[in-house]
Amino acid sequence: MTAPRGFRAAGGICGIKKSGKPDLALIVADTPCRVAAVFTTNRIPSEPVQLGRRHAASGRCQAIVCNSGCANASTGKRGYDNAVKMCKRVAKHVGCDPRHVIACSTGVIGHQLPMDKVLPGIDTLSAQLGDGARADAAAARAIMTTDLVPKATFRQVKIGGKTVTLGGVCKGSGMIAPNMATMLAFITTDADITLPLLRAALRDAVNADASFNRISVDTDTSPSDTVLLMASGLSDAKPIRKRGPEYARFCDALNEVCRDLAYQIISDGEGVAHVIRVRVERAKTNPDALRIARTVADSPLVKTAVHGGDPNWGRLTAAAGRAGASIRAEKLVVRIGNVTVYRNGRPTNVDLARLERLMKQDEVTITLQLNLGAGSCEFLGCDLGREYITINADYHT
Amino acid sequence: MTAPRGFRAAGGICGIKKSGKPDLALIVADTPCRVAAVFTTNRIPSEPVQLGRRHAASGRCQAIVCNSGCANASTGKRGYDNAVKMCKRVAKHVGCDPRHVIACSTGVIGHQLPMDKVLPGIDTLSAQLGDGARADAAAARAIMTTDLVPKATFRQVKIGGKTVTLGGVCKGSGMIAPNMATMLAFITTDADITLPLLRAALRDAVNADASFNRISVDTDTSPSDTVLLMASGLSDAKPIRKRGPEYARFCDALNEVCRDLAYQIISDGEGVAHVIRVRVERAKTNPDALRIARTVADSPLVKTAVHGGDPNWGRLTAAAGRAGASIRAEKLVVRIGNVTVYRNGRPTNVDLARLERLMKQDEVTITLQLNLGAGSCEFLGCDLGREYITINADYHT
Repeated sequence: MTAPRGFRAAGGICGIKKSGKPDLALIVADTPCRVAAVFTTNRIPSEPVQLGRRHAASGRCQAIVCNSGCANASTGKRGYDNAVKMCKRVAKHVGCDPRHVIACSTGVIGHQLPMDKVLPGIDTLSAQLGDGARADAAAARAIMTTDLVPKATFRQVKIGGKTVTLGGVCKGSGMIAPNMATMLAFITTDADITLPLLRAALRDAVNADASFNRISVDTDTSPSDTVLLMASGLSDAKPIRKRGPEYARFCDALNEVCRDLAYQIISDGEGVAHVIRVRVERAKTNPDALRIARTVADSPLVKTAVHGGDPNWGRLTAAAGRAGASIRAEKLVVRIGNVTVYRNGRPTNVDLARLERLMKQDEVTITLQLNLGAGSCEFLGCDLGREYITINADYHT
Repeated sequence: MTAPRGFRAAGGICGIKKSGKPDLALIVADTPCRVAAVFTTNRIPSEPVQLGRRHAASGRCQAIVCNSGCANASTGKRGYDNAVKMCKRVAKHVGCDPRHVIACSTGVIGHQLPMDKVLPGIDTLSAQLGDGARADAAAARAIMTTDLVPKATFRQVKIGGKTVTLGGVCKGSGMIAPNMATMLAFITTDADITLPLLRAALRDAVNADASFNRISVDTDTSPSDTVLLMASGLSDAKPIRKRGPEYARFCDALNEVCRDLAYQIISDGEGVAHVIRVRVERAKTNPDALRIARTVADSPLVKTAVHGGDPNWGRLTAAAGRAGASIRAEKLVVRIGNVTVYRNGRPTNVDLARLERLMKQDEVTITLQLNLGAGSCEFLGCDLGREYITINADYHT
């Protein structure tokens, strides 16, 4: 995240979490950056998201502050004012406009932030900003809730012979996190790219196959989901001012960053033993393909079958059939791994033992070929096991 | 089910289930009945559903045959032909048109029916038809898959001083049944009612508050779901030929039958310890109310919180906010039991210990008052526990 030119970061403990684990992160750019942002579609967004939407609308951002352990969601005016106070305190240290700071929070919903801990925490972290792997790791660690491992990635791409770097960190929503753990991702780049292109690139990257909007840990869309992309423009590479090969290369790298982070979220789902990769091919339309892929990946029947290594493929056709998308049984081909289980409107004579082995791999690939058009989608889900219940039912607020 | 005049039933073992439990049921009317039917919305419906739709379209039905242990779904032409054969064999014994028989199947998807067992089973049961509680119980037992208890109910209503009787049996879909256990309900009445009114009454009853289309055991819509309502017209009560007070009374009784059966399905969900009753009030529209109620009841976060008795109400606002319906945080009131937890856009000062007690009751009532219009909905869900995983992940086809 500090690999692109012009960014520093820090992460540490301010005392929100009773566990005493890191709970506050700061990402600061040397100069004002262009920023693109994607927020939750939840209609009761958290108070930081409400404020963040306003601040991101300016297209300018110089710092991100993020706490874990408390989502500051459904907290009303007091919660909103607390998010404003976080931005102001960061701005004082950075020397920028408070509207060029975005505050994010993740953790339990409905509780107020302990500002007597958060504000001094910001003061402390501001003095600890640095770059390099250690700073990145500290920030990645401080935004974790139920994540087991910190999540980060970076990519480099040549633009006109010069290197552009992208870096990112994120936190996952667990397999159903006890406190509605939220999806947060912060991506930095030193590309010099116009604001409209930066926004288009992020919008596309978030919706790319197997990227953030194409994964499902559970079906609950958090009120805090946020993806931020800051561009410092400090690389030597030539500016990206229009769509073309340079922009395409930048987008490819950004897509890879998003897909990489998304995969880290899925595979670190609480109690998750298997990633389910659902590929829908030749659907009537892309929205139809997404609908089917999401329904199959979210189906509790499919998730438990994968958890148990049970080659019960009838659950796949059943989920696909209820997705609300165009589908015709007689044209449908269903594969688990490379084994076709359903074709021409009826089961194939499949080797169940071989199928069972495929169902027990770390990653189980399910392909549904609809043969109705050119729509396609790749979606990532995960299995559903006892550990999920342990984490979510036994935990008490 | 045989309480209304003109119906007999039988249930027994034909040998589909390896467990040796009852797996074949027969319901026969003395005379051709009017029939109303509601089938699954799954776009890959089972072969018996495909045939049943055709047969029910005639509006006439004299017999229902139903096996458990094999859904005869995703089985192609051979499966369809097997359903036809079941109807023909029943028709031979009843002495009716095979198109006036409806065949239903429930159990594992993708396997062909063992017709060498089913057809002799029909012969045997045809000789055992009877009425009374014993016949009803035998039929109710024979359609069970993962249900723990047989499910039946009946109601009587006065129409112009004379008694009309309704009876019904159903089977539940478990908390996520290993073989996509399906929702089947067969309702009989001796009312003399026109076919259009019979169909309207069933359509409305299925969509009534807390009725079949307002419950969620899991989110998977089975390819076999079927509700059949047969009316023999053999009661002494005067015919129902138009909408009016008699029709309304009949509908009330039918709604009660459907709600009663639906409640039996929810409370017998696999491993279920708690029924979750979600009431949405003053939504902008009825569809909005349904969307919110269903999303809250289906939320894995809400289901695990109820399982663990955790008063984590932030999961309720989060689920309501992602339902895709109109909602405004500052107008929303959320109650668990009779305790208000959220109002005026912020948490109330709630007694968490009291809330925890409410969350541990057999039935947990959640009320979301939106204050945006006149839409409302009552929806039933259930908790999500370890037993659910045990039944569905450890089971192998």
